[in-house]
Amino acid sequence: MSDFADILSREVPAINEYLEDAAATLSPLVQPVVRHVLLAGGKRLRPLLTVLVARAFGHDKDDVYPLACSLEFLHSATLLHDDIVDGAPLRRGRESAHVRFGATHTILAGDVLLALANRIVAEYDVPELTRILSEALLQTATGEILEIAHLRDTDLPLETYLSIITGKTAYLLQAACHCGAILAGADARLCQAAMSLGVNCGIAFQLVDDALDYTSPAAVSGKPTGGDLKEGKVTLPLILYLAEQPFEARRRLAEDFRQDQLSAEDIEYLRGNIVAAGHAEKTREMAATYLAKAQAALAVFPPSPEADLIGQVLAPMLGRDK
Amino acid sequence: MSDFADILSREVPAINEYLEDAAATLSPLVQPVVRHVLLAGGKRLRPLLTVLVARAFGHDKDDVYPLACSLEFLHSATLLHDDIVDGAPLRRGRESAHVRFGATHTILAGDVLLALANRIVAEYDVPELTRILSEALLQTATGEILEIAHLRDTDLPLETYLSIITGKTAYLLQAACHCGAILAGADARLCQAAMSLGVNCGIAFQLVDDALDYTSPAAVSGKPTGGDLKEGKVTLPLILYLAEQPFEARRRLAEDFRQDQLSAEDIEYLRGNIVAAGHAEKTREMAATYLAKAQAALAVFPPSPEADLIGQVLAPMLGRDK
Repeated sequence: MSDFADILSREVPAINEYLEDAAATLSPLVQPVVRHVLLAGGKRLRPLLTVLVARAFGHDKDDVYPLACSLEFLHSATLLHDDIVDGAPLRRGRESAHVRFGATHTILAGDVLLALANRIVAEYDVPELTRILSEALLQTATGEILEIAHLRDTDLPLETYLSIITGKTAYLLQAACHCGAILAGADARLCQAAMSLGVNCGIAFQLVDDALDYTSPAAVSGKPTGGDLKEGKVTLPLILYLAEQPFEARRRLAEDFRQDQLSAEDIEYLRGNIVAAGHAEKTREMAATYLAKAQAALAVFPPSPEADLIGQVLAPMLGRDK
Repeated sequence: MSDFADILSREVPAINEYLEDAAATLSPLVQPVVRHVLLAGGKRLRPLLTVLVARAFGHDKDDVYPLACSLEFLHSATLLHDDIVDGAPLRRGRESAHVRFGATHTILAGDVLLALANRIVAEYDVPELTRILSEALLQTATGEILEIAHLRDTDLPLETYLSIITGKTAYLLQAACHCGAILAGADARLCQAAMSLGVNCGIAFQLVDDALDYTSPAAVSGKPTGGDLKEGKVTLPLILYLAEQPFEARRRLAEDFRQDQLSAEDIEYLRGNIVAAGHAEKTREMAATYLAKAQAALAVFPPSPEADLIGQVLAPMLGRDK
């Protein structure tokens, strides 16, 4: 464990230092918004994956930090734009950026962060990295649009649900791992393993999120319990629950949900039923299958303390409560 | 003139065709929003500048079109995000995207277009092009934030006003010309001339826009006359007018404007006074000085029909009424 603590105590502060330095170069007018989202205590999962994958593939230089942080800037930009899209009042338990700073500053600060991410990556003179970043933004935004198009769609097929979470969450983690591999000059097989690690880890991560939405008290998660049901988001627990309802019950519930006719009590009752029927747990079980795929991809990596550390970071993801 | 017509009848359809083809590759869910902004009859000034500069510097290949269009996609993305920022109900005389499609789709479609622009540019394997595009987005967003920070600021210095319009408008035109020059493999001196052409042309363009806001009837411009005054935007006609008011009159007007205490009649009266005092005209005169700088930069170009055409495109900009 001491090895792992050593690695984290070296890499995480280096990531945070670069994030702070780069944010400080921005216009003083956007800095409050940028700091609000950037310093809100995110897990730095994306930059950490970039750094650890690069290290695992033998890249020991400090030039990995700007690249790693460009993924965090891209992620922060999408969080800012999401805040407006969702209209959510809370983000990670704190006031959302658009509530504190208004939609205008939030949109523009997001654009500034997108530009910053691209500019940082352009400095590497490796067009493949720019392609990966652009594709990640394209997939993320497209995944979110797909999610909105299927709001209150109780006929949402499992495959479409998986496309939504792959786009809005997993693709960026795939990009984080892929960037680390490219910077390290990894061959096609190792690049493929890194991408598989990232995308499967991302799907697992979002599945756990979707399970937590049904089970985690607001005080722990920073988000209201049952928020997805309230917002009309169809996620795996609801899909599984609907699939096992008798025809008539399913039809009635689908109708009420589609037309947003459920009261707060109805929603809380439904949420309780879904959890009691074990569908939040089954969602975590599906997450475990994707996590196993991520671990299998990781097994292709050459042995290194960093590869072991990635394995250690992944495991507790399933058990997390926020 | 027939030469010019030949060039335009070759290049403009090629630009439009690429725009359509690239838009068609996007998710069907964003296409309506993208088409709304892209096919709203823009002048294609940015891609046309990229193409004409590349041609003027001897680059005769078709590979200029994706690059040129990436500038139009970036521009369209900022228009979509601006629509929300400004809360404007009209854009080029048509319903704004956020009114027709809602803020959510408008923000996300903007992000998709930003990603598309970056992805197209990454395909060139010329990191300098990605750098230019990222910097352009950064400057555009920062210019808009600066503008918002100085809303109703009647002490706005001329230099800050020029920074605002350079950021929000001129930088992207500079980028359009610069990209064309880089693709053509132009030397540092010609790149500099292309950038100077773009930025000065952009400042002139925005100055004319700011003059038109005071003089052009809504039926012609598609925007309400005096819209900037209503929205609290301090532009050159107002700056010049305030500068020549006696101390006490200036103080009172500044106070009312700052606190948004002017009625619709007050604003119309003020607008009439500013125009009558010749300040819209003086704004056009300042535009002429920047246009002269653009023409001087163009004089550095080697002789070509395309360079002549750029000169021909610039000249009527001053006299335009929308």
